[in-house]
Amino acid sequence: MNYRLLIQYDGTRYYGWQRQNSTDATIQGKIEVVLSRLEGRPVEIHGAGRTDAGVHALGQVANVHLTERPAEEIRNYLNRYLPEDIGIIEVKQVSERFHSRLNASEKVYVYRLATDPALHVFERKYMTPCEEPLDLGAMKEAAAYLVGEHDFQSFCTKKMKKSSVRKLEEIRLEQLLGEIRITYRGNGFLYNMVRILTGTLLEVGIGKLSPEDIPAILEAKERQKAGATAPAQGLCLKEVRY
Amino acid sequence: MNYRLLIQYDGTRYYGWQRQNSTDATIQGKIEVVLSRLEGRPVEIHGAGRTDAGVHALGQVANVHLTERPAEEIRNYLNRYLPEDIGIIEVKQVSERFHSRLNASEKVYVYRLATDPALHVFERKYMTPCEEPLDLGAMKEAAAYLVGEHDFQSFCTKKMKKSSVRKLEEIRLEQLLGEIRITYRGNGFLYNMVRILTGTLLEVGIGKLSPEDIPAILEAKERQKAGATAPAQGLCLKEVRY
Repeated sequence: MNYRLLIQYDGTRYYGWQRQNSTDATIQGKIEVVLSRLEGRPVEIHGAGRTDAGVHALGQVANVHLTERPAEEIRNYLNRYLPEDIGIIEVKQVSERFHSRLNASEKVYVYRLATDPALHVFERKYMTPCEEPLDLGAMKEAAAYLVGEHDFQSFCTKKMKKSSVRKLEEIRLEQLLGEIRITYRGNGFLYNMVRILTGTLLEVGIGKLSPEDIPAILEAKERQKAGATAPAQGLCLKEVRY
Repeated sequence: MNYRLLIQYDGTRYYGWQRQNSTDATIQGKIEVVLSRLEGRPVEIHGAGRTDAGVHALGQVANVHLTERPAEEIRNYLNRYLPEDIGIIEVKQVSERFHSRLNASEKVYVYRLATDPALHVFERKYMTPCEEPLDLGAMKEAAAYLVGEHDFQSFCTKKMKKSSVRKLEEIRLEQLLGEIRITYRGNGFLYNMVRILTGTLLEVGIGKLSPEDIPAILEAKERQKAGATAPAQGLCLKEVRY
């Protein structure tokens, strides 16, 4: 039976979503260990987004094939044995054909910049402090060049074997109290892409790049042309849509 | 010149508000060290509520007498040198006669119980997990006996030299998603009082005490009659009113 998991995690302590050689310090590994114990055999789960080390998730989605049992029983078992920085919000029976990554139509990532970190004592681990004054208008202009279907190779740390063309449906920049929040919505994201987009928008915000530099950066298809990779701690996978 | 500080802190790492012999691991101590450096002389600040070790604050208030300078300059200096788990929200010039504790008319404390901790991955350090089913109706009945002016000696860990009579204006119990939130509003609180009130309500919630036991507990004026002291991590000083 195929089950869909809705998962939250504080990524601070983890080497990201994807299981590495050891199953120790990844979210996928942690969940697989518990499910393998429940099933009495090795279990593999499929996550929708491979979040980097230190990145958080409010709404990661995964699917896993398990012996049939009540969904609530699976949820309770997972939450009993998982560490407290990983929470299984929901477990649901789904069609055998459902695949969390292949069927995802859109993902929403949020990057939170603390422009006045003293106002965010309780959320400081989920934001990146940024006390330099930022020109939000210029950042919005730059974002407008990035929205749409482009080859985002300049915004990817790995050389892609397959296509690096993705479609960014929306980049929303919001000025909140002591915070600038950037929401990215698109059909897929390359390795480190959201963090490099954010780093590039930050360089526009402080005037190191101008919005008009963006088309040439896209055109170049070279990682070095774009801005620095923004820190992982401010990034959160908010939602996966199907 | 007298300044009023509005302060937030994550109390996890601290031995509470009040400076002890060393100035090291208390909120008051941390703030005084920074202000003393700013002033070039030892500075003492006066806090409205002496929160216990591990208790958090969203709206602690303190006042302090300093050489006159722009309030924003004091705020920036404090936030630059304070650790990131203490945030100064606001600094404001106030009348010389203002005293944060003596002038406070009301304090609001919030106690957060995580009845489904997996839903609170990002707020887990500010809630107390409680997975036993709780009878919220019984807890509300018990709360009704506690509201009003009473001698709360049974709800205080220290033997009070002065009066232990306080007036509790309100105890609000709310069922939220995976959470029971208890809000206490009153003109003053004794040492450990909110945590003992919460521990007592919890014992009513699990059926160990009944609401009708509360009048006798108040009457006894003995700490042992009331429930256990609930953990500090779920408690937060939300607001001080004047």
